[in-house]
Amino acid sequence: MDLKPLLEKSDTKILLVVLDGLGGLPVREDGKTELELANTPNLDQLAFVSACGMHIPVDIGITPGSGPGHLGLFGYEPTRYQIGRGILEALGLDMEVTERDIAIRGNFATVEYKDGVPIVVDRRAGRIPTEENRRIVQKITEEIKEIDDVEVFIKSGREHRVAIVLRFPESLPQGSDAVNDTDPQALGVPPLKEEGKNPNAQRVAQVINKLSRKIADIIKEEPKANYLLMRGVAQKPQIEPFGEKFGLKAVAIAVYPMYKGLAKLVGMEEANPKGETIESQIETLKEVWDKYDFFFVHIKKTDSFGEDGNVEGKIKVLEEFDKQLPKLMGLKPDVFIITGDHSTPCVVKGHSWHPVPLLIHSPYVLGRISKAFTERECLRGEIGIIPAYKIMQLALAHAGRLKKYGA
Amino acid sequence: MDLKPLLEKSDTKILLVVLDGLGGLPVREDGKTELELANTPNLDQLAFVSACGMHIPVDIGITPGSGPGHLGLFGYEPTRYQIGRGILEALGLDMEVTERDIAIRGNFATVEYKDGVPIVVDRRAGRIPTEENRRIVQKITEEIKEIDDVEVFIKSGREHRVAIVLRFPESLPQGSDAVNDTDPQALGVPPLKEEGKNPNAQRVAQVINKLSRKIADIIKEEPKANYLLMRGVAQKPQIEPFGEKFGLKAVAIAVYPMYKGLAKLVGMEEANPKGETIESQIETLKEVWDKYDFFFVHIKKTDSFGEDGNVEGKIKVLEEFDKQLPKLMGLKPDVFIITGDHSTPCVVKGHSWHPVPLLIHSPYVLGRISKAFTERECLRGEIGIIPAYKIMQLALAHAGRLKKYGA
Repeated sequence: MDLKPLLEKSDTKILLVVLDGLGGLPVREDGKTELELANTPNLDQLAFVSACGMHIPVDIGITPGSGPGHLGLFGYEPTRYQIGRGILEALGLDMEVTERDIAIRGNFATVEYKDGVPIVVDRRAGRIPTEENRRIVQKITEEIKEIDDVEVFIKSGREHRVAIVLRFPESLPQGSDAVNDTDPQALGVPPLKEEGKNPNAQRVAQVINKLSRKIADIIKEEPKANYLLMRGVAQKPQIEPFGEKFGLKAVAIAVYPMYKGLAKLVGMEEANPKGETIESQIETLKEVWDKYDFFFVHIKKTDSFGEDGNVEGKIKVLEEFDKQLPKLMGLKPDVFIITGDHSTPCVVKGHSWHPVPLLIHSPYVLGRISKAFTERECLRGEIGIIPAYKIMQLALAHAGRLKKYGA
Repeated sequence: MDLKPLLEKSDTKILLVVLDGLGGLPVREDGKTELELANTPNLDQLAFVSACGMHIPVDIGITPGSGPGHLGLFGYEPTRYQIGRGILEALGLDMEVTERDIAIRGNFATVEYKDGVPIVVDRRAGRIPTEENRRIVQKITEEIKEIDDVEVFIKSGREHRVAIVLRFPESLPQGSDAVNDTDPQALGVPPLKEEGKNPNAQRVAQVINKLSRKIADIIKEEPKANYLLMRGVAQKPQIEPFGEKFGLKAVAIAVYPMYKGLAKLVGMEEANPKGETIESQIETLKEVWDKYDFFFVHIKKTDSFGEDGNVEGKIKVLEEFDKQLPKLMGLKPDVFIITGDHSTPCVVKGHSWHPVPLLIHSPYVLGRISKAFTERECLRGEIGIIPAYKIMQLALAHAGRLKKYGA
């Protein structure tokens, strides 16, 4: 529901800690999960005096990417706001994206020319080393600054991957990214030509086609990476800024660019920790504590170890977070939420569709139900199983920031 | 979903007891809630053999007013039917509201005239005593019976508050209440003029403007209450009558006018108990038991004590209800539902967003799950956490009043 008419001013503070990929599954014969195996006395004690539950990031049975996972936590119904792959790639490489931009994920590829027509023979250019990628991208960026009146920014990712941002002279109407990929998803055929499904998208398609030709020309002598295939062409989605939607001045404290980028996409500010440890993130949190109402702290390593299937690694991050928990409690947030953006069970070695443990600490909870911060104990909790995008409603309610609905 | 095609005739009886503001939160160090502290052996025994659960009145994190709270219990999705403040005020003062009516909440205010223009200096006229309010309202009603062809009814509330019903010669199209308040929500400025956002609303605005001027003229010599500011102008929402929607002949047994009014708004009849006690409400229930299919019994005091933060008081009402419970069981309702319209935890001293305990007694339940009628035990129950407006579906199902859906 639209919360705007219900928003109430307050000086309460809401702290949201996202342990990326938090939830798990049994990793041993005895059925214990990563959270159950981790020694987390502080988290367990907190769970006992908090409201616990589970959230479903996108929908039952749906495995979310990081984009939808975070949009949900930020209070946006994630199927209503699509963040295109190009946008995520650009954010992940710390590139800015604005209303004037089209973002693209590029893949270096190998083509052979037959009668002057490029034919794709390797869609990933043999996964060239990242160093080679960097060298080639530098060559391209030295020669291409603009296509017509559109600024061009290209940045290397890992191996064959790049991100491209095309900055147009003015804001692009929604729908300007309705164009196809040039990657034909097949070998032995030419790359596809960009075509736009409406006049604005046609203009975008034209720029990308010109860019593709120019790049092909610059790198045609490369042994492997002699073509750049375009995928996931996307513009910034139209999202009501977080600050307006919820009446909160918000800041993100994340280490990885993609999560900072996602937070910036909804209008949060960022505060950058000096190091990459949880400890240094908490230091930064303390420094900015007086300046904001809402704090998004993103902890990445739970997910990374989950993706690797590294049970010990994931447990160690959970235990490290547990040790730091008293420092967070020491800040006395009015509402303190701990959860994940999705589950990354070690046995799955990737994101999964499983509900994610959720804890809300505030003076206005029942508590004394969940005896530990684990999947099984959170399932018994007073919050039940709720959609991720409703968590913000609970956060605002507990923060005394929502008026009564109706007389 | 639309239940109409599924409705089945039956002579079963459904009893809904609403303990207003039922749900609570921990009130002591040991985490016990009002319901957990109350000595309620009958309720606890009933919970053990019933289906228990929790309901969410409006939405997760949303604190409902009494209007949306009851609409949900009556089976109406409460965000689809808005009951304006004017309507609730009029119902609360036992005034009838029909399809021909515009209802308004009026506040006596103090103005000073500068060059003939009223300037608001106190928006509540120093909260004049209720007696003074009554005297002034009588003076007004003696002089104003009609504005043009519109009948005018005015009734005193407490202190500076009044309710006004304007009865037009014919039914008003929906949207006729799209007008502003005259209360400027500020001091040192003139009251606002009513303006209508469509032709029907413009007619309504014109009548209210004339009424405001006439009243100002009549009370201009009053020392404090020399103006009446208009707020919450509203017409009766278009609601499918309860009887048609659910195929039930329904009666409300409430003591407070607002709850009788809410029941009448959806088309229930009313049966008025002689006294204000729970006992006398049950007497009345017995008297009309043969005449209806659906019985809404509204018990107010749980909420009143919750609003005051009076733990002992709230517990006493719960215990008093528990003592009367065998009488209700003695009526042998086919489906017996006990719940609240929202939570009013003593620690909040007001309505809250927390889910509300829910009990459904019928031969068709699992039972033997919840060991008491408390928040924590209901959370474990077989119903789970459901939206309030779905309770009526369960009620009809348990009453054998719903056919199979699909072949």
